[in-house]
Amino acid sequence: MTRLVMKFGGTSMADLERIRRAARLVAAEVDAGHKVAVVVSAMAGKTNELVAWTDGAGQPTGKAAEVHASSDDEYDVVVASGEQVTAGLLAMTLRNLGYPARSMMGWQVPIKTSMLHAKARIADFDADNLINAMDSGQIVVVPGFQGVTDDGRITTLGRGGSDTSAVAVAIAAKAIRCDIYTDVDGVYTTDPRIENKAKRLDKISFEEMLEMASLGAKVLQTRSVELAMAYRMPVRVLSSFVEPGENLDVSSNVGTLVCDEEEIVEKHIVSGVAYSRDEAKITLLGLPNRIGVSAAVFGRLAAANINVDMIVQSEKRSGDYANQLFTVGRRDAQRAAEIMNEAKAEIGFDDLKVDEGVSKISIVGVGMRSHTGVAETMFRALSEKGINIQVISTSEIKISVLIDEAYTELAVRALHAAYGLDKIGA
Amino acid sequence: MTRLVMKFGGTSMADLERIRRAARLVAAEVDAGHKVAVVVSAMAGKTNELVAWTDGAGQPTGKAAEVHASSDDEYDVVVASGEQVTAGLLAMTLRNLGYPARSMMGWQVPIKTSMLHAKARIADFDADNLINAMDSGQIVVVPGFQGVTDDGRITTLGRGGSDTSAVAVAIAAKAIRCDIYTDVDGVYTTDPRIENKAKRLDKISFEEMLEMASLGAKVLQTRSVELAMAYRMPVRVLSSFVEPGENLDVSSNVGTLVCDEEEIVEKHIVSGVAYSRDEAKITLLGLPNRIGVSAAVFGRLAAANINVDMIVQSEKRSGDYANQLFTVGRRDAQRAAEIMNEAKAEIGFDDLKVDEGVSKISIVGVGMRSHTGVAETMFRALSEKGINIQVISTSEIKISVLIDEAYTELAVRALHAAYGLDKIGA
Repeated sequence: MTRLVMKFGGTSMADLERIRRAARLVAAEVDAGHKVAVVVSAMAGKTNELVAWTDGAGQPTGKAAEVHASSDDEYDVVVASGEQVTAGLLAMTLRNLGYPARSMMGWQVPIKTSMLHAKARIADFDADNLINAMDSGQIVVVPGFQGVTDDGRITTLGRGGSDTSAVAVAIAAKAIRCDIYTDVDGVYTTDPRIENKAKRLDKISFEEMLEMASLGAKVLQTRSVELAMAYRMPVRVLSSFVEPGENLDVSSNVGTLVCDEEEIVEKHIVSGVAYSRDEAKITLLGLPNRIGVSAAVFGRLAAANINVDMIVQSEKRSGDYANQLFTVGRRDAQRAAEIMNEAKAEIGFDDLKVDEGVSKISIVGVGMRSHTGVAETMFRALSEKGINIQVISTSEIKISVLIDEAYTELAVRALHAAYGLDKIGA
Repeated sequence: MTRLVMKFGGTSMADLERIRRAARLVAAEVDAGHKVAVVVSAMAGKTNELVAWTDGAGQPTGKAAEVHASSDDEYDVVVASGEQVTAGLLAMTLRNLGYPARSMMGWQVPIKTSMLHAKARIADFDADNLINAMDSGQIVVVPGFQGVTDDGRITTLGRGGSDTSAVAVAIAAKAIRCDIYTDVDGVYTTDPRIENKAKRLDKISFEEMLEMASLGAKVLQTRSVELAMAYRMPVRVLSSFVEPGENLDVSSNVGTLVCDEEEIVEKHIVSGVAYSRDEAKITLLGLPNRIGVSAAVFGRLAAANINVDMIVQSEKRSGDYANQLFTVGRRDAQRAAEIMNEAKAEIGFDDLKVDEGVSKISIVGVGMRSHTGVAETMFRALSEKGINIQVISTSEIKISVLIDEAYTELAVRALHAAYGLDKIGA
């Protein structure tokens, strides 16, 4: 018997009826001969409620201005309770379907994490308890998103950390695969809400999925894909909204398999079009063209924990002054501008512009490595629709362009057609 | 510096504003020189929500009819999450008032309990972690109502178990006192909703409080009083609804101290009148008057985990047959009747009557030990109001009578006046 890890997100755990549906999906895999561990998120909306309470409790008053105590560890205590509830409920539901099951909290497994509360990373994972329970015939239900420090304090893995938990559990349990059940039935060539001709991919490589997740596709959390890729753990994304019943045919709910490139027979040059509106463009005008200026700019942003994505430097004709253009996440834009303005004299630029009306469109595909003309097709397709490209950045398997946000949907559809993605057969 | 344990119930933790008020009360005790551990309940209503979910998840279907797996351990996992939330939130709030604080879950302390899930008993309590944290200047916030088994599974102590947790923590921490903050400002001579002349008692003995709690006074959980009495841990019941602020005078919120009888200078003959409507009377008519019949009746009820309270056997004139009358909790009445009827032939009674329209009125006071005529006063007072006594039961410090439920309030008021309780000076 092989071990399998299944993960259900918040919408799949939203109420008792959904939990029963998830339990039937788990039961079907047990009936199919798997030893199963299940990783669950909190009920949809519950984590937001808990976070709001910690926000309310976290407003310093009175003496706290002097003491300034960080409460990240207590944040974790509060927020981790959401998954504890769904883990217990799913275990109860499985038992009541007649399947042996038990919950196992992060501290019971134990899933050791670093001390970085609220965004802890999985440091160590002693899977003996987990594997023993699975091998003794128990379905083990693990609350996603949480762990424990060496000195026994509860940690959480950051929002969306349940995907990462699931992949970590799969690796530790030496599972054949990690099945992520979600509210979509797989990974699509692009967002179906924008392009209704978007097609579900049967398979996608780890590298492509990582780019897609990083570039704005929300189907899987970036860190979970990184972890899966590092350990070559196959991950399947599939729908938890199939209608189970006596005749549930699990095999028809195939989803998308995220796997090694070698396992993908029919490779596409481009597998998907991703977009992100979470972008802002900052331009520093009249920057002195001397060594150390870029370090001064980006060092300050890094110190403030602001991620910079695209960077372009354009020299002025004279050669003494340049304009520096870079993009940051939109929520960081105003803070980045303030930090630059505070150092305006020191860095020595003339003026600063913030443009929050931009979006980033990306094409992703391992086929780019071996095919030429991929970029040309992209630029031509955008040009034909009158879309101006403001910045370009590339990696081995992706090309991203920054454009006026108003053209986002048009650009996605144009690129989807240009690479024939509507003709991919899934 | 002395150690003090403070406990806040669900209404005192109901929202962030109430949690802030509780935090200010804790801060005042720290300022007054105490090392404080706090035990908290879940937000009011939250435990009911969690229990309802487990009820929903706990409905056996399909294969479960064969397997019939108990889910008490998973019930505990789900329900214990409520106190985890409030413990974290109170610790955060204390820090933000400038006071060092941390939460410590039942499994972190650890509060070892027996394996009887959902009504676990506190078996063992290694208080080193707790005392070390308190002595290092931390306010330790412990979620009430929960513990951990030897093999690391979460347990809960049964509804209302937070009072018991608080007393256990106080004993383990060698505290000078356990202060139970609640929505009333102390223990009253009777329920003020029935008798508006009811007076708050400054002090009440453990023994009296235990009887009051057992007899229906809801201010403290019976088991918490048993535990406090066994270890002679003083417990103070007081209001969490005082208005705190810059000039909060904690000393004016004195509540009622539950303590050793010896510490009570001004002893009352009767300290309180309790009542309970959770009563049902079952009468077995025409029972053969032979050895072993009572054992057959009460053995069956005990096997079904039904508590029997009052028992009266009345012989018929012939001497061969008797009527057996007993009381059980009202929610057990129908089940008790079914159990009796199933064994009707075997036990050999003619008929069975269930009367759910009864209530139990009790007077409690250590003064009964040394004073005569206490019972006579009770019976006369009830008789003067035309109230018929159906059953009487007594202990060293209490007298209980079963009466027609319709007379409950009248009886309480008559007895309150008969013993001069409206003149007790608090």
